[in-house]
Amino acid sequence: MSGVIVTNPPKADAKDVEALAGFGVATVSEAMGRTGLLGPELRPIQQGTRVAGTAVTVLSWPGDNLMIHAAVEQCGEGDILVVTTTSPSTDGMFGELFATALQRRGVRGLITDAGIRDTQELREMGFPAWSRAVSAQGTVKATGGSVNVPIAIDGRVIRPGDVILADDDGVVVVPRESARRTAEASEARENKEALARAAFIEGQLGLDRYGLRETLVRLGVTYRTYDEYVRDGAES
Amino acid sequence: MSGVIVTNPPKADAKDVEALAGFGVATVSEAMGRTGLLGPELRPIQQGTRVAGTAVTVLSWPGDNLMIHAAVEQCGEGDILVVTTTSPSTDGMFGELFATALQRRGVRGLITDAGIRDTQELREMGFPAWSRAVSAQGTVKATGGSVNVPIAIDGRVIRPGDVILADDDGVVVVPRESARRTAEASEARENKEALARAAFIEGQLGLDRYGLRETLVRLGVTYRTYDEYVRDGAES
Amino acid sequence: MSGVIVTNPPKADAKDVEALAGFGVATVSEAMGRTGLLGPELRPIQQGTRVAGTAVTVLSWPGDNLMIHAAVEQCGEGDILVVTTTSPSTDGMFGELFATALQRRGVRGLITDAGIRDTQELREMGFPAWSRAVSAQGTVKATGGSVNVPIAIDGRVIRPGDVILADDDGVVVVPRESARRTAEASEARENKEALARAAFIEGQLGLDRYGLRETLVRLGVTYRTYDEYVRDGAES
Amino acid sequence: MSGVIVTNPPKADAKDVEALAGFGVATVSEAMGRTGLLGPELRPIQQGTRVAGTAVTVLSWPGDNLMIHAAVEQCGEGDILVVTTTSPSTDGMFGELFATALQRRGVRGLITDAGIRDTQELREMGFPAWSRAVSAQGTVKATGGSVNVPIAIDGRVIRPGDVILADDDGVVVVPRESARRTAEASEARENKEALARAAFIEGQLGLDRYGLRETLVRLGVTYRTYDEYVRDGAES
Amino acid sequence: MSGVIVTNPPKADAKDVEALAGFGVATVSEAMGRTGLLGPELRPIQQGTRVAGTAVTVLSWPGDNLMIHAAVEQCGEGDILVVTTTSPSTDGMFGELFATALQRRGVRGLITDAGIRDTQELREMGFPAWSRAVSAQGTVKATGGSVNVPIAIDGRVIRPGDVILADDDGVVVVPRESARRTAEASEARENKEALARAAFIEGQLGLDRYGLRETLVRLGVTYRTYDEYVRDGAES
Amino acid sequence: MSGVIVTNPPKADAKDVEALAGFGVATVSEAMGRTGLLGPELRPIQQGTRVAGTAVTVLSWPGDNLMIHAAVEQCGEGDILVVTTTSPSTDGMFGELFATALQRRGVRGLITDAGIRDTQELREMGFPAWSRAVSAQGTVKATGGSVNVPIAIDGRVIRPGDVILADDDGVVVVPRESARRTAEASEARENKEALARAAFIEGQLGLDRYGLRETLVRLGVTYRTYDEYVRDGAES
Repeated sequence: MSGVIVTNPPKADAKDVEALAGFGVATVSEAMGRTGLLGPELRPIQQGTRVAGTAVTVLSWPGDNLMIHAAVEQCGEGDILVVTTTSPSTDGMFGELFATALQRRGVRGLITDAGIRDTQELREMGFPAWSRAVSAQGTVKATGGSVNVPIAIDGRVIRPGDVILADDDGVVVVPRESARRTAEASEARENKEALARAAFIEGQLGLDRYGLRETLVRLGVTYRTYDEYVRDGAES
Repeated sequence: MSGVIVTNPPKADAKDVEALAGFGVATVSEAMGRTGLLGPELRPIQQGTRVAGTAVTVLSWPGDNLMIHAAVEQCGEGDILVVTTTSPSTDGMFGELFATALQRRGVRGLITDAGIRDTQELREMGFPAWSRAVSAQGTVKATGGSVNVPIAIDGRVIRPGDVILADDDGVVVVPRESARRTAEASEARENKEALARAAFIEGQLGLDRYGLRETLVRLGVTYRTYDEYVRDGAES
Repeated sequence: MSGVIVTNPPKADAKDVEALAGFGVATVSEAMGRTGLLGPELRPIQQGTRVAGTAVTVLSWPGDNLMIHAAVEQCGEGDILVVTTTSPSTDGMFGELFATALQRRGVRGLITDAGIRDTQELREMGFPAWSRAVSAQGTVKATGGSVNVPIAIDGRVIRPGDVILADDDGVVVVPRESARRTAEASEARENKEALARAAFIEGQLGLDRYGLRETLVRLGVTYRTYDEYVRDGAES
Repeated sequence: MSGVIVTNPPKADAKDVEALAGFGVATVSEAMGRTGLLGPELRPIQQGTRVAGTAVTVLSWPGDNLMIHAAVEQCGEGDILVVTTTSPSTDGMFGELFATALQRRGVRGLITDAGIRDTQELREMGFPAWSRAVSAQGTVKATGGSVNVPIAIDGRVIRPGDVILADDDGVVVVPRESARRTAEASEARENKEALARAAFIEGQLGLDRYGLRETLVRLGVTYRTYDEYVRDGAES
Repeated sequence: MSGVIVTNPPKADAKDVEALAGFGVATVSEAMGRTGLLGPELRPIQQGTRVAGTAVTVLSWPGDNLMIHAAVEQCGEGDILVVTTTSPSTDGMFGELFATALQRRGVRGLITDAGIRDTQELREMGFPAWSRAVSAQGTVKATGGSVNVPIAIDGRVIRPGDVILADDDGVVVVPRESARRTAEASEARENKEALARAAFIEGQLGLDRYGLRETLVRLGVTYRTYDEYVRDGAES
Repeated sequence: MSGVIVTNPPKADAKDVEALAGFGVATVSEAMGRTGLLGPELRPIQQGTRVAGTAVTVLSWPGDNLMIHAAVEQCGEGDILVVTTTSPSTDGMFGELFATALQRRGVRGLITDAGIRDTQELREMGFPAWSRAVSAQGTVKATGGSVNVPIAIDGRVIRPGDVILADDDGVVVVPRESARRTAEASEARENKEALARAAFIEGQLGLDRYGLRETLVRLGVTYRTYDEYVRDGAES
């Protein structure tokens, strides 16, 4: 691969990123019409951490971290590094030395659908990471790739400058153009959920709150007592 | 799917449930002749928690949590909600709002071979959960299903009212009719293990305690020194 | 399977094992030319623990832990038990009773590409374990196998007496003959990394430190501004 | 495991089995309300073969085919052998010798969520099989299990005497009590599909035939030309 | 999900599609710099068939084929239907009735990272398909989605009108703007490969043809006789 | 990786290879005490082909086929090329050009736990292959590795010159020193199976032929009629 390193891509507005950082990944995804998630195989190496930032994207050859070196220079305050490979790989492409260099530049975390290593050190230095694998397997620096081109992970396109939000539930990408309206929709959704939470604590049922009893009737779902159910010859 | 919601199923006796809660999942499964386990892919989102209760079962369409709403109404003190889907799904069908409603009703936890979300919130509110996936991916409320019918997860049938026991090692289901005798067998097994533990601390070997040296001889397993083994041309 | 139990295999020198215990799994693997790792599917049940020891190897039938009983007798101070099965299995072959017997004999931990159970008890008693699965599923003691023969896990051969090093990043095996030179190479590598870390904190880039700018040029990787990139008709 | 071998279980009526054999697996599953399927991981070793019969069920220990030997004696004309293991296994539990013995007794095929072997010989002798794995790995005859007890594969309960139908699309189980009404519902469904097929050949759209245009409107799905879509700032 | 159905998207030129149809998937991917492939999990249900066409894209809810009905109307001569779901699913979303409707409209095949069914019928009617799963599990028509929006499968973005090329080796997507130059590059590559093939038949080695002996020297790869290798204490 | 290319390794005797070629993979594995298999994930791209030869082994970097070029020169009449990677990869490392060069040198087939491509061409030219994946994803030639060193696939060590036997059931490796005695044991086993086959056709049961009725009694497996089983309160 030859590849290209794109400099100075547009980025989501920092104020919008901060606004999104106030919500959970599930809330923001819901606010986007249940889209934008990177899939359940990307897991955090730490617990209880939420981070938001703007994506610097990397497309690497499997087993080769040359382009992460190139990407460090493109990273700055408030960024999150997002790394994928041209074909699936679990190799540990990223570790404590990269985190040291990135933390100095103000980078807020790492997302990769390949592997990472030095996980205990990353936790200790407070550099959060989400990855598909943890592996001590090291990599070479022999093959080209690209930085700040659009990439796709688990069916989601991530462009440089898009907002990345990650917590214990996973990772969501918000297109840079819709960061503001997504933050607003997230707040509206959170307000709505607060009302529902209060009602549920009072004992209201979702069946009634959301008008779902009619849905059940329309779908032909019926209520039977256990005795009726057994008498009618239900198979177990 | 049309489906059925079964009300008032029989349940295991609360006293037997409490008795079973005193044992680990591995002990109870052993006491049942090494059966009843739901498989290693169901993982807890918390560590060091054990919970026992009676199953309220849900069969849902993938990507659709309508029937969990219907199930909440069927749940009460001492229950555990057990959710499966008609085909494999990792979507986050269950989160903090459901947990709020269930906790108010005295429900003790959630088991699902689909996905859950709001995991950090669930840990903070002390609502334990075991699931196949963690995913922020939300669901719709559009398709029917069933509540309190027999379901199967990982080759085990779970009927409403059966006992669910879950800890860090996994999840086991005890048929409601055999709850008492399983609790008794578990206690017998635990006593036997305590004796073995004491003997092992004294230095006894399982080879001798369980009479396994004869088994090895019968199976033709031989002892060789390393030198003999190498001299005889062992391949590495 | 008939099988063989090999006694008194050669072991890596204890001093070399201690020396290797001072490095992380990633460092040691790098020092061996990026080899020796057992693959990312073997995960620790605890966090923040590193252990090193000499391998006692076990080849078992799936669902059968007879040979682990035989292996206990072959284990001593400073050993690590390494268990594989003749075909893939997630059954919980190893639990707290085995750990009790092994801990008394000075064994430092367990590595298996099958399953383990009693994980909470293992954490509480401080017996570290790395496994492919956690499963309460118990096993029988009916089929033969071997102890202290060469085995292979995830493409790596492990012979009795080889050094096993395990931490949060995974598990690496160091052949007993190369323990000393691997420890030396690990120290050299760690010194080199310390210099790199200091330079990165100062702001130097890997691109410059490792001479990678020339590599990028040679591979045809070019720099473009975002505006140039878009103007030239990049596809997203 | 001790286990039990159940003799003379009730079976679905042979006439109903023959009726079901006239339909595809997809049609029968649809006629049962989209239930009864054993999951996409069970694949046929042959192509273009459909088979129907009554289940003889086997629950075996992984890596052990003792209970298949016991099951042969329970098999007769028109049966299909259905084998599962107490925990996941890919071992080749079944091969040409078993098929020879079963074919002589009038058995129509094999279903297993473990592994099989001698696949080329099975194809040559015309004994159809569906399995999760093909593996030459042999097994022992050392551990007990059960025959003709209810088992579960991929979330479906299979009882002895239930109807098994298998083709290139997978495997479906029809409870013995509902064999007749499922055959009738399958025929009704097939007639309906024939009308739809004819209409589609004429050029009618499913959108119109099934009244789905209104569904789209109700769900808020809108039509846009590509130019409108791009002008409104769609993200790619 | 509400969603959008985009009408009249731009399409790759039919002449360029035909040109691409003359090459294998591997050749075209190489000609694009080893990019564009949809990953090895998408397998053909037939053997020895190659097909090329322009993409009509569908984004569906898992377990729901409503939007495929909507997509049929958008399909025409020379198209290939490409279906993905918002979260992973193996359900059989597509079968013989859809193929009948599409074949009448001149559609050339189906690509999906979900499941399909009626596979034997599809082979018989000559409608080629590539999918992640074969499953008889049917779907509902209850949830919205989109047609002809950009989707992503296995890290590749597919836009409506892009060229899809599929054969026994997998599926590649060629952006509509680069169809012509990719066809030209494919031809150049094929010519180059024909020369290599002729040379290899003559006995030339790739080591010499591609100048790789120098690469080996530069990387420090050395030649040793087996005797030297064993004498120097190679570990096995 | 630097690596080494080992020349002139010892090879199994050609006569023993031919003898082994007369048996199936399952038979040979049984004759070796149920060992030597490479695991069910390695699948043939053709059907009904069996091949035997001596291994030329390759250890490559993922996504890099440089060392296969180096290996071609080490291959000769009667060899089988066996390729693994230092970490898991599905990339298509091997295709028709390599097969052309190898076929000319008398090589009999390819085994790899990575990916291959040009599968239709390989079938047409009669060059058999077994692989973990089929993928058109191409590779680079940038990183070192080794040829003819011992490698391990799925827990089995393969040394240069060992015998590889592959058919529809999978792949088995026979250490070069034990080729002759394994061929003899395979013949003995096949004779024994022929007798069993004849007996099974006559109607004898394995239960009687192998004395398994006593085993069932010893293990506590009991016979019950269905009526007894139901009356005693069996859980479904």
